[in-house]
Amino acid sequence: MENKPNSHTEKLYRAIQLTRPLLRHISAYVEQELGDSGVTVGQRAVLEVLYTDGAMTAPQLTQKLELKRQFVARMLAEATDAGLVTQQANPEHARAHFHVLTDAGHGAIARIRDHEMQKLLELEALFTVEEIETHYRVQQVMNRWFADRLTTPKP
Amino acid sequence: MENKPNSHTEKLYRAIQLTRPLLRHISAYVEQELGDSGVTVGQRAVLEVLYTDGAMTAPQLTQKLELKRQFVARMLAEATDAGLVTQQANPEHARAHFHVLTDAGHGAIARIRDHEMQKLLELEALFTVEEIETHYRVQQVMNRWFADRLTTPKP
Repeated sequence: MENKPNSHTEKLYRAIQLTRPLLRHISAYVEQELGDSGVTVGQRAVLEVLYTDGAMTAPQLTQKLELKRQFVARMLAEATDAGLVTQQANPEHARAHFHVLTDAGHGAIARIRDHEMQKLLELEALFTVEEIETHYRVQQVMNRWFADRLTTPKP
Repeated sequence: MENKPNSHTEKLYRAIQLTRPLLRHISAYVEQELGDSGVTVGQRAVLEVLYTDGAMTAPQLTQKLELKRQFVARMLAEATDAGLVTQQANPEHARAHFHVLTDAGHGAIARIRDHEMQKLLELEALFTVEEIETHYRVQQVMNRWFADRLTTPKP
């Protein structure tokens, strides 16, 4: 950012360009704040969905997270080995069992989210309500705009 | 986004969560729009910096792009092989020569950017001037906020 953008088109372009470093900084920060919880960033993503949305099959989790199937399978295996996730029979599909949080998993992700929410409130304090509304709306419109223009949707 | 967020904290959280799918959609779209230009997304990033900022050494490019050194070296080698980039002697450091666009490289990235700017104007039309200003400002503040909190800065 060595010189100020002098048009709105340029500001929009720069905001888009900021997406890559922003994601890198967010990911590194989330990882840092996981600290000695013993939960990795990937496991955290899986635990969060199970915490928010309840029991899910691996395909459902994969779709929800928009991550690669193999990655989600690995995260589930790790979280299961760590005693954070367990399996439940799926009455509709015997072979696609449900993954659910154990009590330990529930406690772990609740503590992680609690800590993150505290930090998020610090960030939120830097913005007005209108700024948060507008930023969220623009992010949503942009995400849909780019996604809608893909002739071969990416995984 | 199956249910509406009911607090500003949650909107901010969701806007942050949108960063990952947004980056994936932007990258896929940029790649798609490069079409049969013969330029890859990685090469495009290198050409763009040389186009905007002029001659640079590989370390300068690496720092500017915030990408891995090896990746930038490979993109430079590919772009050089394709006749889009060439090398110039650096009077200050005999071993750190400058990389500059050839006429072909200049023409290629100018055409690519022209096309992208046309598309960007379509996206821009969806927003008010205030929305673009606010979104850009929030992106900048968030990026700095997360980066400033990293105890071990990530590359």
